[in-house]
Amino acid sequence: MRQSFAAMGILAFLLRAADSPHVLRGYSTASSSIETQWERKFRDIPQTDRLRENMRRLSARPHHVGSPYDKDNAEWIARQLKSWGLDTHIETFEVLFPTPKERALELVEPVRYTAKLEEPALPEDPTSNQKSEQLPTYNAYSADGDVTAPVVYVNYGTPADYEQLERMGVSVSGAIALARYGASWRGIKPKVAAEHGALACLIYSDPHEDGYFHGDVFPKGPMRPPFGTQRGSVMDMPVYPGDPLTPGIGATSGAKRLALSEVTTLTKIPVMPISYQDAEPLLKSLTGALVPDTWRGSLPMAYHVGPGPAKAHLHLKFNWDRKPIYNVIAKIPGSKYPDEWVIRGNHHDGWVNGAGDPVSGASPEMEEARAFSELLKQGWKPDRTIIYAFWDGEEPGLLGSTEWVEAHADELKQHAVAYINSDSNGRGFFGAEGSHSLENFVNGVMKDIEDPETKMTVWKRARLANISRATPDKRAELKSRPDLRIGALGSGSDYTVFVDHLGVASLSIGYGGEDQGGGQYHSIYDDFYWYTHFEDTDFVYGKALAQTGGTMMMRLADAEVLPFQFTDFADTIHTYVAEVKKLAADQRSVIQERNSQIEEGVYQALADPKKKTVPPTKEPVPPFLNFAPLDNASEDLTRAAEAYEKAFSAGSEANGSAVNAKLIESERLLTNATGLPNRPWFQNLIYAPGFYTGYGVKTLPGVREAIEQKRWQEVDAQIIRVSKALQAEADLLDEAAKQLGTK
Amino acid sequence: MRQSFAAMGILAFLLRAADSPHVLRGYSTASSSIETQWERKFRDIPQTDRLRENMRRLSARPHHVGSPYDKDNAEWIARQLKSWGLDTHIETFEVLFPTPKERALELVEPVRYTAKLEEPALPEDPTSNQKSEQLPTYNAYSADGDVTAPVVYVNYGTPADYEQLERMGVSVSGAIALARYGASWRGIKPKVAAEHGALACLIYSDPHEDGYFHGDVFPKGPMRPPFGTQRGSVMDMPVYPGDPLTPGIGATSGAKRLALSEVTTLTKIPVMPISYQDAEPLLKSLTGALVPDTWRGSLPMAYHVGPGPAKAHLHLKFNWDRKPIYNVIAKIPGSKYPDEWVIRGNHHDGWVNGAGDPVSGASPEMEEARAFSELLKQGWKPDRTIIYAFWDGEEPGLLGSTEWVEAHADELKQHAVAYINSDSNGRGFFGAEGSHSLENFVNGVMKDIEDPETKMTVWKRARLANISRATPDKRAELKSRPDLRIGALGSGSDYTVFVDHLGVASLSIGYGGEDQGGGQYHSIYDDFYWYTHFEDTDFVYGKALAQTGGTMMMRLADAEVLPFQFTDFADTIHTYVAEVKKLAADQRSVIQERNSQIEEGVYQALADPKKKTVPPTKEPVPPFLNFAPLDNASEDLTRAAEAYEKAFSAGSEANGSAVNAKLIESERLLTNATGLPNRPWFQNLIYAPGFYTGYGVKTLPGVREAIEQKRWQEVDAQIIRVSKALQAEADLLDEAAKQLGTK
Repeated sequence: MRQSFAAMGILAFLLRAADSPHVLRGYSTASSSIETQWERKFRDIPQTDRLRENMRRLSARPHHVGSPYDKDNAEWIARQLKSWGLDTHIETFEVLFPTPKERALELVEPVRYTAKLEEPALPEDPTSNQKSEQLPTYNAYSADGDVTAPVVYVNYGTPADYEQLERMGVSVSGAIALARYGASWRGIKPKVAAEHGALACLIYSDPHEDGYFHGDVFPKGPMRPPFGTQRGSVMDMPVYPGDPLTPGIGATSGAKRLALSEVTTLTKIPVMPISYQDAEPLLKSLTGALVPDTWRGSLPMAYHVGPGPAKAHLHLKFNWDRKPIYNVIAKIPGSKYPDEWVIRGNHHDGWVNGAGDPVSGASPEMEEARAFSELLKQGWKPDRTIIYAFWDGEEPGLLGSTEWVEAHADELKQHAVAYINSDSNGRGFFGAEGSHSLENFVNGVMKDIEDPETKMTVWKRARLANISRATPDKRAELKSRPDLRIGALGSGSDYTVFVDHLGVASLSIGYGGEDQGGGQYHSIYDDFYWYTHFEDTDFVYGKALAQTGGTMMMRLADAEVLPFQFTDFADTIHTYVAEVKKLAADQRSVIQERNSQIEEGVYQALADPKKKTVPPTKEPVPPFLNFAPLDNASEDLTRAAEAYEKAFSAGSEANGSAVNAKLIESERLLTNATGLPNRPWFQNLIYAPGFYTGYGVKTLPGVREAIEQKRWQEVDAQIIRVSKALQAEADLLDEAAKQLGTK
Repeated sequence: MRQSFAAMGILAFLLRAADSPHVLRGYSTASSSIETQWERKFRDIPQTDRLRENMRRLSARPHHVGSPYDKDNAEWIARQLKSWGLDTHIETFEVLFPTPKERALELVEPVRYTAKLEEPALPEDPTSNQKSEQLPTYNAYSADGDVTAPVVYVNYGTPADYEQLERMGVSVSGAIALARYGASWRGIKPKVAAEHGALACLIYSDPHEDGYFHGDVFPKGPMRPPFGTQRGSVMDMPVYPGDPLTPGIGATSGAKRLALSEVTTLTKIPVMPISYQDAEPLLKSLTGALVPDTWRGSLPMAYHVGPGPAKAHLHLKFNWDRKPIYNVIAKIPGSKYPDEWVIRGNHHDGWVNGAGDPVSGASPEMEEARAFSELLKQGWKPDRTIIYAFWDGEEPGLLGSTEWVEAHADELKQHAVAYINSDSNGRGFFGAEGSHSLENFVNGVMKDIEDPETKMTVWKRARLANISRATPDKRAELKSRPDLRIGALGSGSDYTVFVDHLGVASLSIGYGGEDQGGGQYHSIYDDFYWYTHFEDTDFVYGKALAQTGGTMMMRLADAEVLPFQFTDFADTIHTYVAEVKKLAADQRSVIQERNSQIEEGVYQALADPKKKTVPPTKEPVPPFLNFAPLDNASEDLTRAAEAYEKAFSAGSEANGSAVNAKLIESERLLTNATGLPNRPWFQNLIYAPGFYTGYGVKTLPGVREAIEQKRWQEVDAQIIRVSKALQAEADLLDEAAKQLGTK
């Protein structure tokens, strides 16, 4: 029989007053005290020396999908986990993974320049010379192609950038779009370029985003050197991630596969990443209009848009092979609720040596697993089943996590409580994004982790940093709101399939803000030498990540009532509803104002006869939209969340496991089997990566993107779908509250 | 006997309705019609070919103070004016004008680099090779000195930048401060550097403010090339401009002069301007902390603060000579009110060939004078006396205008109606700054000038451009307020002594926004070749300037009642009062918030142990201030301005000349003979250049700067002084209204 939560509350207050440990949410006083002791033992186990040695081992050689060392790493991780006594296996899938066969880029007019397309070995950096094993610089899932065409500089290559080009009378039709990294995820750049008629796309790292503008370049400092190049996937992941040949199903050896010609997530045009050293001759050979102010990069020159006279020749040919991927899966069976699974993951594959990405996250994850094996030896047992996953194939397109989840979708829908992801880890401040039903939980864990530099809790450090950075009105909220807000999940790591496809409450966690992280992102120099000279050099934040991730896993695994909380979620939904309403109102007023300026002659007044400009044309003013269903549903959600919270606080002898089943279902209810417009794989109606941002999240995506993309007739229906899901969530909370109230 | 203004108003409305010319403010219908015809004739006279030839002549050789061609130009201008029949003389003063005797800069550690300190001749540019006549690159009124010291990069060298350095634990004491041009006027940089203990100051043109970041560099494009250098004065002009030896009096040959040692407007430390080519080796040799984000320039490197290891040796020695300056003064006597003077000016001296600065303004001014001589031949006579001045010695420190006004202060206080200044002129949009009693007048003239590119009036073009650039709330005001706002005058050209010292209503006018003006500012390349390739290449905006300036002069000279208007002025004063109140409130809340953050531990939370930081210390919270006198006075000013406007509209057979005497006095009343705190020369209580901005205006300067500089105990007294002046202004308007009401 469980102690009354109300009594717990009072006791907790008394305990806090005496500066003793607080009672954990979802725990009785007694179980909280036991849990707290085990968590402390857990947090004493991770060792910085082991983190360093894990990194040295895992990043010793290039370990991309299909490489010998990728398999070797997976087998080594599995051996380690097994050696610690954990039930571990490797689960293999077979995925499309193109690698370059031929790569060439040259400027053919007005001067000749042959791009190097090569990151040289540096004497300081001992692994930079592993040339035979390194993947060349390329974008995975680019189309084959051979194009000779004038070059146009398109800034970040976002839809807004092409609107700007239109105002300048410049078209990329028949041209090679030269985009800089930044603002959108890289895969968006060739997608939007192709939509505008470009024949090919080049993506370069401008030093303004990624180089000396931010600090000294490698090997003197951490930042990208002139010849550094960012590899990366350009698969159209906002349509669906994972193996392009097996959307929605696991890419097992016998799976039914699409023909390559049927795949919709490959780029329509060839695309290649280049260094700023290779981009500079192209940019210097552009004339035409000067770029708008915000398009300027940090190369020492005046940027022009073109087109031409720079004309380039791009030649790309790929091996369109299938490659095996190796997910390492370890399970610690739950002693009370073995069918409720708490899942932790970090990928192990890199683009090259991948010390920062992903080993700085994978190495702490291994330490978590080892720490649990130690606790098991000391007699601790989790109530729920704990699963540790080391994914392969994240870099090309979240392949390992996506195929595993698709292959196990039915079980996971039944059993998955939550998924906690990490990836590259740095130094500084704790950051989390994820499902807002876990926001309060995240805050609770943050209050128990000590920041290794300041010795204050990572919660306090994050809160004070937020206060210092906030605008005055946000600051007032920060000072009064008990929980720090967490951001919503977009995409860019292995949580995507969990939260967006299956509706499993998910978190992405890590430390950063003091490192100059990303300086060698997806380059051969993201290696042990670089990481141990410039990032979390003494691995104290690797240790903090292991402590944080492990504490989260334990606390979820052992709670009597799962620590989901919905008033933060409902509050967050209200902010999203306010945002989409404001977005629609802003769209209206922007279009009205522009129409009025067109009528008044503003564009004639601004025209400079020495510059080519194309004034905009009048647009229909958007209709007013019916947001009432969203207002009603989010209000009801708030009411139900508060009712649940009240029942939870007052709850006695409730049927914990029945409530837990409801709580597990709470994120599933946010999904809809028909998915988002034009991308059915994405089934979460609250969170999705943007169709035109790639990684960047769009909350209430069906509604928000219909407004952004001016598909007005679609908005009402999308509002109703989301409102129904929120209403169902409110109903579920009412039922859960009722169950908690049952004596 | 004058027609009733009320009847005029109705007629004007009827005329407007028929799209006929409106009745000019201060004119009867009949006189307005005559004036309008003469103004049209005037505007037909200026010729672009003559503007080009004037520029070719005046910029043919270097013509700085003391050079043969400076005198030659003055004599040529005088001959031209005389040849057109104008009563012209040259008025000479004798001023301190130091020129370099020895200049050397070298980086001595960690590597050796000898700065070139030289702008090379370019084959494309025919006057760039006039080496024997060019002034070398230097800052006039720098102290002599020989310093060897470590270098510290201080960003723009503003007081806020030194606060930031303090937070980073970096001092310039005993160092050479390396500042970039921008944000503040150049003379502020050595002043603030010296206040912080620097031994010397270098000022360089970073390409971010002044070079390839904005466009192609000369000779390919208009922007400053790597070796381009900005000469300029560093005299402490916010204390007093003009000849340093004769503050407050004309520098006539017999004037009583200060000893050099008594002068307070020379720099305390040696200072020199350098190119970005010469700055780069110094910047590259700095280590220490990375600069804050907003301190980054556009050189291809990571900027560090230092100090050192860069150590530099700067050696400067000057000829401290007195030189003659030559103001050219032409008068057209007024036929009705010869003792009421309307004055127009533009300087003629340059730093080198000075095509843009000042000839692009001086050449149109000559065309105005020529056009008036043509009108005189056709029978027109101005009612008031018109004075055309071509000032010498503006560049070193507003020498010609200041000495002339100081020498003629008594007469000018009696007679000066208004002063209209121009200086460098470009292409694009009309811009004016000045006394707000003339705001409505400026708007009226703008409605009669045709923009040469769009053929709409320059008023309409400016209004539409403002609308397109405005924030939504400013846009609403723009659409509803009849008059476009004009900015307030700071310093940086020859209006300073008129408005700030003597209290003569002043305007600064010009065209710009489409040119990439300033690209060769104060360089040898600001010459005929550059101007005619990149700026107002066909001189259509030079013609527009002549049309605008001339129309203003005529309309002021011929008005029956001077077109001063005070509701715009009162409205503007209300905005200033709101600004200083907000400034005080913001100061309070910033200090309170920072104190609270210090208490809460924000600075410990933000500290990165790998970076040196010095947290701020708690500051006393500022007291609440008594703004009531300002509120009362500005309210009363509004009431009086409206009363005057009502009387003006209803006015009949009024004694025009009595009212005009009051109107002339209206700007004088804003001055106070004891001047601003610590700078008695600056006597205008409404407008002044900022003590720490140099050119940038501070309105209500006594109040605003006391708040900014946290001299709280001074604020109340300053509020009372300004309030008294505004009250006196209101009283004057009441008297003027009474006079207008007299039948």
